[in-house]
Amino acid sequence: MERPFTLRWEGGLNGHLVLLDQTRLPAETVYLECRTVEDVWQAIKRLSVRGAPAIGVAAAYGVCLGVQSGRSVDEVCDYLATSRPTAVNLFWALERMRKAASRGVLAPVRGGGPPGSLNTLTELLLAEACAIHEEDRQQCAAMARHGADLLSDFPDGGGILTHCNTGALATGGEGTALAVVFELARRGKHPHVWAGETRPLLQGARLTMWELQQRDIDATLICDSVAAQVMREGRIDAVITGADRIAANGDTANKIGTLGVAALAKVFGIPFYVAAPVTTFDLSIKTGADIPIEQRAAAEITEGFGLQTAPQNAHVYNPAFDVTPAELISAIITDRGIVAPVNAHQVAITLSP
Amino acid sequence: MERPFTLRWEGGLNGHLVLLDQTRLPAETVYLECRTVEDVWQAIKRLSVRGAPAIGVAAAYGVCLGVQSGRSVDEVCDYLATSRPTAVNLFWALERMRKAASRGVLAPVRGGGPPGSLNTLTELLLAEACAIHEEDRQQCAAMARHGADLLSDFPDGGGILTHCNTGALATGGEGTALAVVFELARRGKHPHVWAGETRPLLQGARLTMWELQQRDIDATLICDSVAAQVMREGRIDAVITGADRIAANGDTANKIGTLGVAALAKVFGIPFYVAAPVTTFDLSIKTGADIPIEQRAAAEITEGFGLQTAPQNAHVYNPAFDVTPAELISAIITDRGIVAPVNAHQVAITLSP
Repeated sequence: MERPFTLRWEGGLNGHLVLLDQTRLPAETVYLECRTVEDVWQAIKRLSVRGAPAIGVAAAYGVCLGVQSGRSVDEVCDYLATSRPTAVNLFWALERMRKAASRGVLAPVRGGGPPGSLNTLTELLLAEACAIHEEDRQQCAAMARHGADLLSDFPDGGGILTHCNTGALATGGEGTALAVVFELARRGKHPHVWAGETRPLLQGARLTMWELQQRDIDATLICDSVAAQVMREGRIDAVITGADRIAANGDTANKIGTLGVAALAKVFGIPFYVAAPVTTFDLSIKTGADIPIEQRAAAEITEGFGLQTAPQNAHVYNPAFDVTPAELISAIITDRGIVAPVNAHQVAITLSP
Repeated sequence: MERPFTLRWEGGLNGHLVLLDQTRLPAETVYLECRTVEDVWQAIKRLSVRGAPAIGVAAAYGVCLGVQSGRSVDEVCDYLATSRPTAVNLFWALERMRKAASRGVLAPVRGGGPPGSLNTLTELLLAEACAIHEEDRQQCAAMARHGADLLSDFPDGGGILTHCNTGALATGGEGTALAVVFELARRGKHPHVWAGETRPLLQGARLTMWELQQRDIDATLICDSVAAQVMREGRIDAVITGADRIAANGDTANKIGTLGVAALAKVFGIPFYVAAPVTTFDLSIKTGADIPIEQRAAAEITEGFGLQTAPQNAHVYNPAFDVTPAELISAIITDRGIVAPVNAHQVAITLSP
């Protein structure tokens, strides 16, 4: 049986995007066919596809769908940019699509149509989206290698705490933080993953546990509030999470709850690592204070899984992300190598072309 | 309309215990009639009644029900002691009932029956259970006063983070940690409570938010993983939780997640207080390492909301409590005054008769 895939383009120039609907996991493996850019916008908004790199890839394919219907690349990109505010890979991918389009319209390098024609444009855009997807795959593989090298003295059977989902479901490839885990497993380290369930939407329980089970990686599910306890019990050798946006100084926005595990790792003397491709860095902002934080609906908490679990009209604070300051991060694992110590200088060195 | 009550005895010597079924809140206000000791055991086990002091009171009434059916006090107490292992108030209340019974059988001080008769015994036991209940009410009031005095420089409109439920639903009176909040409100401080939802069983979302709404206290519900973020945002002036068992050195077992917020409070420079009556101390154990921690079913996490939210057969670690070391606790608020700094010496001084 084919392993479920996260997202792929099917059917050539007039094709469409097929996405695994992650809101239905782990109970059901259901694919969504996105045939319009609106379908992609909705899929991103409602988290059918999530994870910063995967959002970028999905948005790139979304641009292809948008121009199929005759809209301009700018119009389509502006629209897709409104789907989610925090993950910078979204804006990065849209920018790449804009640039590809402007290159193509000015000087088409391939395809049968006349310069600037729709056929040439859609060809160029699809080629660019596929390139973004393929590069993301390669970035995941590179992060896996660099991360496993960094953890070369990881003890056999050691524990890794992670938060949210950072595997194949979150990227175009094998993952960010989980890719490091998969590589440690290939190197015979038998990592045991402690997966925080990741309230309110339970990406850790629903997605990470599902991916780890599929790959036969030992894993234990915990409520987010158990992180301190398993650290205190000495079960955790490293914490690794992904990132949604990293500022020039290394401050990292990631799924709400990341700041807490980073601060607890500090208290309990455990290294805290972030794994993210260079596309997750946003050098236009100096510190995490400037990263916009998406606020989500109260109902995600008060009636998350069908039951009313808080009084009617309860006031709720539901930020989707928090920002972990650079000083709490032991190292950032990127596809271009390790950022450590985490500061503006080291970020600049690692990201310089 | 009468405010819902947590538990009360109805009907005299041959009466029964009526409990608010807290598993149904906030959606429904349903009372359970406990007419046998088995009913009480089940109500404690399945958390229809929970909170260390309330468990003690319920167990005391449960002894009355047990002897109604002709069983010995020792037999009934041994049985009730198996309902939950961590909250020491349970064992304390059962011990008081045993002592009352032995006093009564040897030298009855009231009642119409001959010495040692069932009537005298049930009278004595019911009187003792009522006394435990009433003393718990008074202890709550005393903690409220001592706690509010301790927080005398609490800023108007300041923020208090709490975890789990520690109000009237958890005690025979107004509560432990929440009683301090209620007293601050009566003193015109307008406290704003940040309630951690308290996974897996959501006592914060279901019970604390419900109690605060009933009493018109400003409150915001957060996922447990948001605690670090609201601390970092400067919204929290104090953290106050309850306790299920406190060792002689001040190490405190409380609802899973408490250790995390205590450690985070330390990181962010916020005082962390525990509020508990002296009946929650267990001077027979030196440190928290000796407190037995109840492990609960995986299904509380994997299908807590009625939906399957993790893969089948996912391995789960679900301790009901964790232990916060004394050095992370700024002060313990008891009905006999404040323990601070928290160490064996100060605990002994506060608890000495």
